[in-house]
Amino acid sequence: MVKGMTTRGYTHTKDRYRSRLRRIEGQVRGLERMVDDDEYCIDVLTQIAAVTKALQGVGLGLLDEHLRHCVRDAASASAEAGDEKVEEAVRAVERLLRG
Amino acid sequence: MVKGMTTRGYTHTKDRYRSRLRRIEGQVRGLERMVDDDEYCIDVLTQIAAVTKALQGVGLGLLDEHLRHCVRDAASASAEAGDEKVEEAVRAVERLLRG
Amino acid sequence: MVKGMTTRGYTHTKDRYRSRLRRIEGQVRGLERMVDDDEYCIDVLTQIAAVTKALQGVGLGLLDEHLRHCVRDAASASAEAGDEKVEEAVRAVERLLRG
Amino acid sequence: MVKGMTTRGYTHTKDRYRSRLRRIEGQVRGLERMVDDDEYCIDVLTQIAAVTKALQGVGLGLLDEHLRHCVRDAASASAEAGDEKVEEAVRAVERLLRG
Repeated sequence: MVKGMTTRGYTHTKDRYRSRLRRIEGQVRGLERMVDDDEYCIDVLTQIAAVTKALQGVGLGLLDEHLRHCVRDAASASAEAGDEKVEEAVRAVERLLRG
Repeated sequence: MVKGMTTRGYTHTKDRYRSRLRRIEGQVRGLERMVDDDEYCIDVLTQIAAVTKALQGVGLGLLDEHLRHCVRDAASASAEAGDEKVEEAVRAVERLLRG
Repeated sequence: MVKGMTTRGYTHTKDRYRSRLRRIEGQVRGLERMVDDDEYCIDVLTQIAAVTKALQGVGLGLLDEHLRHCVRDAASASAEAGDEKVEEAVRAVERLLRG
Repeated sequence: MVKGMTTRGYTHTKDRYRSRLRRIEGQVRGLERMVDDDEYCIDVLTQIAAVTKALQGVGLGLLDEHLRHCVRDAASASAEAGDEKVEEAVRAVERLLRG
């Protein structure tokens, strides 16, 4: 895909997602340092739960944009296209849920 | 804490955890690129689910080491110390579960 | 609310949801029997995971119907109504995710 | 297994688990009524999240008892027995986590 040629549900809030993901990248590097420094297992686990929550937060944000834009656009094109998008979105939620 | 002065349940398998976390860090950078390139929302969500699963896998590995070493050591010191460690571990599982 | 006066996204597949929930009710009764009979903790936990998964399956089904019907109807009424429904659905997914 | 012949980690707090599970059974019946009465999808989903959380709570309680009693007893018998129990418990947590 040619970069920047396509717009997605999240395109207009892209900077916000990029900076949230960059923060998560920093948190993962923090986890590496904790392991390097032999920090207490439970503290590492607590931090893993926090990073997981932050990732799920990004996922929920993207889901919101997707339903608000992509699914709606598909549904206004045709009922079939809308149904397909809904199915796809629900399967994505299932993957988030099942970890 | 002085680096390398303390041993934890995962200390002897530290390299493995470090490399798993480094791979996760790379996956998060991959997510940033996906957003940068306006990749399809659902594909980003699928990748978020994969990273979450990888993080939970690290968490489960650390929990295993923790129960196998730290909790056992505490329990052999005293029943109270063991109970305290169990409570702490279960609260950590709860945080993993609640995302 | 007067029973049967309102239609929901799942109204036309109501019997299917009712029988899935009745099966889940039976599984919970099975859990009570397991505890009564002092069955092995890990077996009870495995069954709890199965019931949780079954409940999430019902939740995902209802979410699918909701997006397919209620959210679409709202969106075709007005963009604001559609946005409101999307927000509400995403918050429901968040509650499912956070357990 | 002969009922009442075996003691498990949760045997001494059995009544508490039984009553929590009975309450959950009632909540599932409540879900059936909600579906019967065509209650709003999102309200049903919210209640599903609550039942899931209650089930996970029972699971976390059983895990606590299991680690406190069964795993400790196994570990005091032999390191191998303890390791086996830990592995089994971590796999049970994984099933809870993966829904």
